[in-house]
Parts: sequence; structure tokens; C-alpha cells
Amino acid sequence: MRQEAATAQVPADVASLVAAEVARHVSGLRAELERQIAELRERTPEDRAALVVFSGDLDRALAAFVIATGAAAAGLETSMFFTFWGLSVLKKKGARAVRTGFKQRMFALMTPAGTEGLGTSKLNFFGMGAVMLRSMMKEQGIASLEELMAMARDLGVKMTACTMSMDAMGIAKGELFDGLDYGGVAAFMADASRARVSLFI
Amino acid sequence: MRQEAATAQVPADVASLVAAEVARHVSGLRAELERQIAELRERTPEDRAALVVFSGDLDRALAAFVIATGAAAAGLETSMFFTFWGLSVLKKKGARAVRTGFKQRMFALMTPAGTEGLGTSKLNFFGMGAVMLRSMMKEQGIASLEELMAMARDLGVKMTACTMSMDAMGIAKGELFDGLDYGGVAAFMADASRARVSLFI
Amino acid sequence: MRQEAATAQVPADVASLVAAEVARHVSGLRAELERQIAELRERTPEDRAALVVFSGDLDRALAAFVIATGAAAAGLETSMFFTFWGLSVLKKKGARAVRTGFKQRMFALMTPAGTEGLGTSKLNFFGMGAVMLRSMMKEQGIASLEELMAMARDLGVKMTACTMSMDAMGIAKGELFDGLDYGGVAAFMADASRARVSLFI
Repeated sequence: MRQEAATAQVPADVASLVAAEVARHVSGLRAELERQIAELRERTPEDRAALVVFSGDLDRALAAFVIATGAAAAGLETSMFFTFWGLSVLKKKGARAVRTGFKQRMFALMTPAGTEGLGTSKLNFFGMGAVMLRSMMKEQGIASLEELMAMARDLGVKMTACTMSMDAMGIAKGELFDGLDYGGVAAFMADASRARVSLFI
Repeated sequence: MRQEAATAQVPADVASLVAAEVARHVSGLRAELERQIAELRERTPEDRAALVVFSGDLDRALAAFVIATGAAAAGLETSMFFTFWGLSVLKKKGARAVRTGFKQRMFALMTPAGTEGLGTSKLNFFGMGAVMLRSMMKEQGIASLEELMAMARDLGVKMTACTMSMDAMGIAKGELFDGLDYGGVAAFMADASRARVSLFI
Repeated sequence: MRQEAATAQVPADVASLVAAEVARHVSGLRAELERQIAELRERTPEDRAALVVFSGDLDRALAAFVIATGAAAAGLETSMFFTFWGLSVLKKKGARAVRTGFKQRMFALMTPAGTEGLGTSKLNFFGMGAVMLRSMMKEQGIASLEELMAMARDLGVKMTACTMSMDAMGIAKGELFDGLDYGGVAAFMADASRARVSLFI
């Protein structure tokens, strides 16, 4: 190569000056650009999805689990944060509740005792909406809420019960499914602020 | 400039040594930093917005289209995914439904037959809420749902009907507006995971 | 160092030529990579969270303020956009309303006159749900809606009232809390499109 030939004629002291000078500039550039890239990386979403499940309606819970399993299947690390009425979705069937007060007992009586007791947000007609929705989905070979929940678990979807809501509604850990995480809004924000997608359902 | 003057005196062999030395150091650096940048780019949101329209309430549908047209006007490529009750928003007025079963027929009877039949989520009073909301918006010169939908179409907002919900509710393509896309949760996740903003309405 | 010693022997004009030549070569690379980084930076989320508060239900308003204060406490610049029924949350208690028309007066009669009049989305039973929820939260030492709103204000959460909704519902600025921002969907999109987290509540 022409350059190699030319380079051969450069005195050793100049050659080493060039090498030193290039190394100095290049390492400065690298440090500066890597700092800029690191600053972006810190704010670039990770392959995550974070859902708040606020609603305890069957239809919204179904939508939440369809989206969660879809996100997990698409390769996103998916977390669901169950708060307020959404905690109903996590209730074990027939778990013995030890309520701390009258109001908590009243609330428990008025909220469903497990996923099979969830109503729809529309057309409820004393549970008819839920019965019809479940029956139509079954006929069409669409996964039920319980199947979707099992699928979510298998796909590694993280499910967190909101501890503030549990306190407010007097719900004990023993009433909820096993294998849950427990946390507050800070836990959700930690996931959501790094997620590509965050939804409030 | 001082440096220009100095440069003029430099021998060709030194200049070409510098070029070679810089090229050698720099090509590694370029490759390394471009790899880091590409890795970030893959996770950096594109100029997109993705909305799930789950609700079939007039007020929520209005909010969805106000946000969608606002996002499109702000230069974001906007997509709306209509699922569950949200499919009501896409129903053509007076389309002939060919239901596959009794429950699907019941569901069809109980859900609105087009955008003009949508109720509000609050203060419904057998449709009074919707009538009042529409009338108040008209008086104030605010675009109606139908106007907003036309505007969204003109702005290139992509509208996708959820095929799983269509199956569950027994809704045929012929009952929905023309020019829609059809897809499942994977289609939504593909849009949402690249979007700056994603909302569940 | 060996290189420093060698460098010392190179004539000053050659040394400054080398420095200039290296800088010239490296600056091209810097410009190219910084352009790529700047292009990413423009689309990289900032440390922001943006919430649409569409609902005027006590439970959803509580969730919105718990999330907003959580986001602000986590260091995100947080903005809340109150639209449709969400405007109820911003109403001053006992503000005199000057309605422009019959329908606006009807709407005002049917919507709560301040945060203490908000009902829950479920189990409302003519306000019983809200009374119970408030009472249970108090017993558990959980912040009330009014306390959360004060906290949000102290944490610098920006609250924007949707002017289009105010027009539609005939709500005047005097009826809402002081210190609010006013804007339309464009204001929300400007915040949301730069945010790490955006939710529709």
C-alpha cells in the first residue's frame, strides 16, 4: 500500500508522536461519546411491559391477561401490578378470610371471592354477562381467564399484589394465589419507567 | 489560522502516516460505538402512538379519537386497536348481522348497532347522557365522534379490529366500517412496543 | 513514558501539524456519531410521567394520585391532564358556577361539586362505597385524596385542566382549584410523547 511505503520514511520520533497523538484524541472521543451513549441508555426502554390491573371486571381482567401473555410471547419481560378491585382477580377460591373489621367484612361480601365470581363491566345483569362471555369464548376455543392466568405464569409474567390496597381492603396474603410478589407503587414505577409499554387497565 | 499555516509545511509522508494511524484506531472505535448505538436504536421509541380502545362508551370513544387525532397531528404514526366493547365504535349503521348462535344474537341485541347508539359511561339515564353530551359539544363547536373518526382517517390513523373479540362476539367483517385492518394482540404489541405513547382506553 | 520522550524531540511545527491533522480526521467521526446519537436522543424518553385523568370516580382518582406522587417521588417530572369527568376532581368546594345554558346546568347538577362528592366506580350504593373506602383508608393510615393532592402539589406535579372539556361541560376557571395549567390535547401529547410512562386512568 502506498501509505505503508510513505509511513516507512517517517522518522521514528514523529511516528511515535503521531501514535501518541492519535491515541490521545481517540480515547478522548471514545470517553465523550460513551458518556453520551450511557446517558441515553439509562433512559432507553428495556424489553419490558408493565400493566396496572385496577379493574376487577371479568372483561378487563381478560384483556389484561391477553395483553400480558401477548407481551411475554413477544419477548417482553412482563409485570402486572394488581391494585384496588384488581386484587379480586388474584383471590383463591374459598380462601378463609380473617377480616380485621366490620367494613372490611362488608367489602369482602360485596367483592367477588375468586375469578369465577368476576362480573363484566357492561351488561352484567346479575352475572349473565359474565356467563355469556365465558360461554361464547369457550365455543370459539378462546382461552378462559384461568387458562390465560396459567399461561401468564408459564411465560414468567411477574404478578405483584399492591400492599396498600390489601391494607385498605383488609385482604391477607393467605387469601391470594401463591407465587405472587408484594409491593407498593414504587415497585410498579420501577418496572414501568423502564418499560416499552405501560398500560392502566 | 495558525494551524492551517503549520499544516501547509508538513511533509506528505507524515500526513499519510497520520491518516493511516487515525484510520486504524478509528475504525475499531467506529464499529464499537455504532454497535452500541444500534443496540439502543432498536429499543428507542419511534414516532408512534398506539391506543387500545376497549370501551364502547361514547365518552371514552371521544377521548380515544381526540387523543388519536392529536397524536397524528403532532406527527406521530398512530394506530388504534379496537377490542371487546370497543368494536361497537366500528359498527356500520344498519349492517345486516349474520349471527352464528343464540348467545351472539343476544349480545348483538344488547350492544349498540353503530356509533350513534353508544351511551356514556356515566349519567347514562337510558341514553340521555349521550344526547346531552353530543348536544353540548355541538353548541360549543366541538367535533362529533363521526367527525373525529373521519379526521382520524384523513390523518392516516390505522384502525385495527381485534379478530379474537370478533370471534368471541360473533361479529363479521361486513358489519364493520370499510378500510380497517384486522389482527390480534400480536399486531397491537408490535405497534405498542415501538411507540412513544401507548394508552388503554 | 517512552512516547513522551520521543515526542519531545519532534520539531514544534511538525508536532502541531500532527495534532491538527489528527483532530481533523477524528472530528469527522465525532460529527457522524454525534449526529446518530442526537437523532436517538430526540426520541429517547425523558425522566417524565404523563397521566390522563379521564375518570371522576373516587377510586380511580385515588389511583391516579398514588401513581402521580409515586412517579414524582421516583424523580420523574410528572404531569396530570384532567379531562371529561376527571375535571370533577379539580373542582373547588362550593365555587359559584355561572352556567351558560340549561344543559350545562343539568350536567353540573349531575356531577359532583368537589372531591368530597366523588363516588366509587364500583359498589357505589348512593355514595356508601366512597364513604366506606375513605373510612377504611383512614383507619389504615393511608393518605386521603385531598392529602394526596396536596402531596402532588408539593412534589411539583403539574396539573392541567382540559380546556375542550371545560367548554363542552360549561365549566369556568373560577370553579377549579388555583394554580392549574390549562391546555388541550396538544399539551398532553407534548408531555406524553417525551415520557417514560403514560397512562390513561
